[in-house]
Amino acid sequence: MGLLKNKDLLGLENLSSSEIELILETAKSMKDVLNRPIKKVPTLRGKLVVNLFYEPSTRTSSSFSLAAKRLSADGMGLSVKNSSVSKGESLVDTAKTLKALGADAVVIRHGVPGAAKLLAETIDIPVLNAGDGAHEHPTQALLDIYTINEKKGDIKGQKVAIVGDIRHSRVARSNIWGLNKLGSEVRLIGPSTLMPVGIERMGVKVYTNLEEGIKDVNVINLLRIQRERQNKGFFPSIKEYTKRYGLRKEHLNLAADDVTVMHPGPINRGIEISSELAYGEEAVIEDQVTNGVAIRMALLYLLLGGSKNE
Amino acid sequence: MGLLKNKDLLGLENLSSSEIELILETAKSMKDVLNRPIKKVPTLRGKLVVNLFYEPSTRTSSSFSLAAKRLSADGMGLSVKNSSVSKGESLVDTAKTLKALGADAVVIRHGVPGAAKLLAETIDIPVLNAGDGAHEHPTQALLDIYTINEKKGDIKGQKVAIVGDIRHSRVARSNIWGLNKLGSEVRLIGPSTLMPVGIERMGVKVYTNLEEGIKDVNVINLLRIQRERQNKGFFPSIKEYTKRYGLRKEHLNLAADDVTVMHPGPINRGIEISSELAYGEEAVIEDQVTNGVAIRMALLYLLLGGSKNE
Amino acid sequence: MGLLKNKDLLGLENLSSSEIELILETAKSMKDVLNRPIKKVPTLRGKLVVNLFYEPSTRTSSSFSLAAKRLSADGMGLSVKNSSVSKGESLVDTAKTLKALGADAVVIRHGVPGAAKLLAETIDIPVLNAGDGAHEHPTQALLDIYTINEKKGDIKGQKVAIVGDIRHSRVARSNIWGLNKLGSEVRLIGPSTLMPVGIERMGVKVYTNLEEGIKDVNVINLLRIQRERQNKGFFPSIKEYTKRYGLRKEHLNLAADDVTVMHPGPINRGIEISSELAYGEEAVIEDQVTNGVAIRMALLYLLLGGSKNE
Repeated sequence: MGLLKNKDLLGLENLSSSEIELILETAKSMKDVLNRPIKKVPTLRGKLVVNLFYEPSTRTSSSFSLAAKRLSADGMGLSVKNSSVSKGESLVDTAKTLKALGADAVVIRHGVPGAAKLLAETIDIPVLNAGDGAHEHPTQALLDIYTINEKKGDIKGQKVAIVGDIRHSRVARSNIWGLNKLGSEVRLIGPSTLMPVGIERMGVKVYTNLEEGIKDVNVINLLRIQRERQNKGFFPSIKEYTKRYGLRKEHLNLAADDVTVMHPGPINRGIEISSELAYGEEAVIEDQVTNGVAIRMALLYLLLGGSKNE
Repeated sequence: MGLLKNKDLLGLENLSSSEIELILETAKSMKDVLNRPIKKVPTLRGKLVVNLFYEPSTRTSSSFSLAAKRLSADGMGLSVKNSSVSKGESLVDTAKTLKALGADAVVIRHGVPGAAKLLAETIDIPVLNAGDGAHEHPTQALLDIYTINEKKGDIKGQKVAIVGDIRHSRVARSNIWGLNKLGSEVRLIGPSTLMPVGIERMGVKVYTNLEEGIKDVNVINLLRIQRERQNKGFFPSIKEYTKRYGLRKEHLNLAADDVTVMHPGPINRGIEISSELAYGEEAVIEDQVTNGVAIRMALLYLLLGGSKNE
Repeated sequence: MGLLKNKDLLGLENLSSSEIELILETAKSMKDVLNRPIKKVPTLRGKLVVNLFYEPSTRTSSSFSLAAKRLSADGMGLSVKNSSVSKGESLVDTAKTLKALGADAVVIRHGVPGAAKLLAETIDIPVLNAGDGAHEHPTQALLDIYTINEKKGDIKGQKVAIVGDIRHSRVARSNIWGLNKLGSEVRLIGPSTLMPVGIERMGVKVYTNLEEGIKDVNVINLLRIQRERQNKGFFPSIKEYTKRYGLRKEHLNLAADDVTVMHPGPINRGIEISSELAYGEEAVIEDQVTNGVAIRMALLYLLLGGSKNE
């Protein structure tokens, strides 16, 4: 039995604030492990963590693999071609097979919202959502929140602006859930064509003007522009987007003095963020990557039944 | 030196019944390992097991990788594009390279019957056949036999029906060899266009009628329908096949009371087996997957020189 | 801190002869490890070695992975599609991400000369060049030199002929630097269209005639013909090449009595080398493969801060 209420991590919507705090605290211990000369503990030796990725993702998939390795778990990767995805049934059969092979946990990325939940209902081992459609990407949000906490000392009261294609962003959605629960003020900034109707009901403020939105904020979290969406019509051109929403050094004067710039990566330099800013002292993009490993270690530890006294 | 007569596992045709029994018995110990909290033993530490797959196979390849990991061996996967397959010479060169890299055993899947044998003749380390054309797929048959034994307590005297495209099935061929050696009665069921001429000489009974063939059997082993064969003309349509050979719940009344339903997976639900049946209590499809890991652990152990006293 | 002067291994051009000798000597100890029953030492436990391959390479990539495994390091492979290669910027961002993920060393193969250097300047961890365009392939040259030393007892004074497409060969270039530093006489043999203008300034002798070039040599190192270059016009046809430069048994009479035949593999049998010769007693192609693992172990050990007293 794990230390979280549910056996799975499907999203931040259903985590309590104290569960999020437990994850952040555990991740802090894991980060200590990553700073040791031998960055490895035997905690999950003999456990099998399966990466089941229906969408390609070098970054998230590598981070989960590494987290498993640092805990001495065995990893197994299954990349599934998109062709065999659509049928819910085959996902269920795959799940049963993974369980039978001896999986102790499954990390899933899938293009369809709710896929992680379906998997979680099918097998009695922990399922970790590594992104399901435009629904949630909880580990990204947790690492974002961890990074904010690390830089600011607290989440409560921080003004956080999320900039970009909110409509299609699972990262935004998970961040909103988590930041709200921990008492941040969340602002969403982006063109109205990329802003879901009624999103204000999630307890956020919506801005279509970048300058206005980032006024006095402590954190600016830039979403990655998915260039492939350009053909979809409702999307502004990259050029227009960059002109209106691309973050540049001079914008930071509008924000709070301690402003921190975040990006889930990989960045499109010169598009959603200027090169100067991406490598500037306000950016914490690489901290986010490191913290992602620590967060995923914490989750594997908590879900795979680590005990507090261990 | 391994504990089997030959250095390789190429097929069940050349295994004696006592060798098969040794494998089953060893697999039982391995299954005990899989039921421990830490499902790992140091038996093959430092050994290198290479997966050389000329045909894609998530399932068999994962099972072998896992088996190696559970024994603490190092694994290395080589997926070879089909383009570079046809030349026997390049297989020989690849084999020599793997040996020189330090491989202690090679697991090979190849579209051409005899490829595993050619490899085995080329290098002096154990070669494990993970399927060679329509010839043999010995580890699948061994896990099938293990599962029958586990459920029935014995192989001898069991009536086993194998249903499907017998002509193209290496799984069927290996099962026939093994089951015959251990004293089962083997029946083959399928359309005559998919039944090899003269197969009766292998000591089996042939049926083209499903209802007739499964009468009083203790085990029904369904082969996977390869949809891509449909274009080949001699194959019935999927619809026709399902109508005449798809197994449904009501069929089980014809079989023995203790009938067990098997399938090597992945299943085409609603085609060779109804969904109801696939998840019913007679089905042991997931046991087969688990037993596959145990069988492959046993073979790696026996071929890589484990000693009985270890 | 590593034991070599620089934090990286970018090429043989910038290694001193004593550094090369240290690498060869260390590789000898590593080869002893490979001859033990348990071919594994805990030296680099907890270290993370990333393979970043922008060009496909089963052979070099596997050899590096294995070298890391033998030293108990964790490995992570990133295969990058060629599409995202060209921009220097994205390589820099990838490097920063790998560092942030916790990489302790990066092995890079890239189609552009200087890519490894760019990476090395970007991150403060060791970078190992696994081939950068037509520039250098230092680990291949080091394993070649190790093999020559192993067979001959010395590098100094050996006459070494390199045969093939010198113009496009990073293997040739690295061998020239290394062999020259250690006192060999280097000859280059190939069609003038595949011979870089002014290459003699590197201190080598150039021959367009095979028979003439291999006269009295102690080593013949055959480069692999890249068939895809054929379309480029300046290349002779495969047939012409084989006729004029393909090495056959009878050629060896022209060379020194102790002549050794080398090839980086995979060989095109019947093209640059006859089958008879590839498997003949003068060929050391498989020794080269084994020595490649030892050389790469030595480099990981030396660059990742192994101490002499460890």
